[in-house]
Amino acid sequence: MNFKLLEKRILEDGRCYAGGILKVDSFINHQMDPDLMMKIGEEFSRIFKNKGIDKILTIEASGIAPAIMMGAIMHLPVVFTKKKQPKTMDNMLVSNVHSFTKDRTYTVCLSADFLKKGERVVFIDDFLAYGNAARGIIDLCRQAGAEIAGMGFIIEKVFQGGGDYLKSQGIDVYSLARVKSLDNCKIELE
Amino acid sequence: MNFKLLEKRILEDGRCYAGGILKVDSFINHQMDPDLMMKIGEEFSRIFKNKGIDKILTIEASGIAPAIMMGAIMHLPVVFTKKKQPKTMDNMLVSNVHSFTKDRTYTVCLSADFLKKGERVVFIDDFLAYGNAARGIIDLCRQAGAEIAGMGFIIEKVFQGGGDYLKSQGIDVYSLARVKSLDNCKIELE
Repeated sequence: MNFKLLEKRILEDGRCYAGGILKVDSFINHQMDPDLMMKIGEEFSRIFKNKGIDKILTIEASGIAPAIMMGAIMHLPVVFTKKKQPKTMDNMLVSNVHSFTKDRTYTVCLSADFLKKGERVVFIDDFLAYGNAARGIIDLCRQAGAEIAGMGFIIEKVFQGGGDYLKSQGIDVYSLARVKSLDNCKIELE
Repeated sequence: MNFKLLEKRILEDGRCYAGGILKVDSFINHQMDPDLMMKIGEEFSRIFKNKGIDKILTIEASGIAPAIMMGAIMHLPVVFTKKKQPKTMDNMLVSNVHSFTKDRTYTVCLSADFLKKGERVVFIDDFLAYGNAARGIIDLCRQAGAEIAGMGFIIEKVFQGGGDYLKSQGIDVYSLARVKSLDNCKIELE
């Protein structure tokens, strides 16, 4: 993968914090640059165009922007899992996710109406770190009987091992930018 | 306002529940139709194009898709407020919002880095009900010294009064579909 526009932006505008935290909240996950997000959607569309995908899955909130851009280009429905179970939602698929980055455990919920047996889905998210959100998605897809055609992330923190874990589970993983190290609060890309 | 495509979809795929709840989770706020979302973004862009806007504000999670589409068309940054204060975020603007629909109170947080004195913003969200989320946004803009150029909602539940309140505060409110009544679990549009 070689997505120089994104890599340049991460190096220019990303900020490091102790504990392997990379903040990209001026252009990806608090303030968002929609032009960049459109290019990210185009890149994911290019990567996944021949994978026979029925649906795009993501997790609220930071996955929604790249996923909806990809969906608009590929004309595919996008479903985002919710972190709190809505009181009007029955027939739910539920899994628990622990975020080391945010140091909290949350639930990912999905109406079973929107993930069906045999559907081929791609999971899109902003970050791949330890892979715990992705594990929650794998669990939801297993519960539904849906098939994972691949996973796409804007930024992978390679040193946190989520990518290796997902590949060991036979999942095709594509990351648009791969961060090799954040040691000494310096962003080093692969 | 006359956005027939959306009105037709609400009447076909929306579902009513007791207590004035309208679920549009098969195409707007759980599963999303990106083609519709793009048309919604185009419509908001048309409405707000001459308002001298610097930035689009929304609230996670359901406001992100229409806001990012509008941002892509207008080439404007989009900022979404968060419901939990990230531990790495300092210099925060914070307001509290009570959602009658969801029967809970939550916090809307925004880094002061992304909302500055004198900026003209438009607020975009999926629903206008009692207007409490919008009040939170008004409070955040007041704290920042930012100016609200208008607010755009995909669906306004007119009978819940949020629109009247916002107009009484001098705010330009645009809703793409206006629901007059959900009495007897029947969707009646204006």
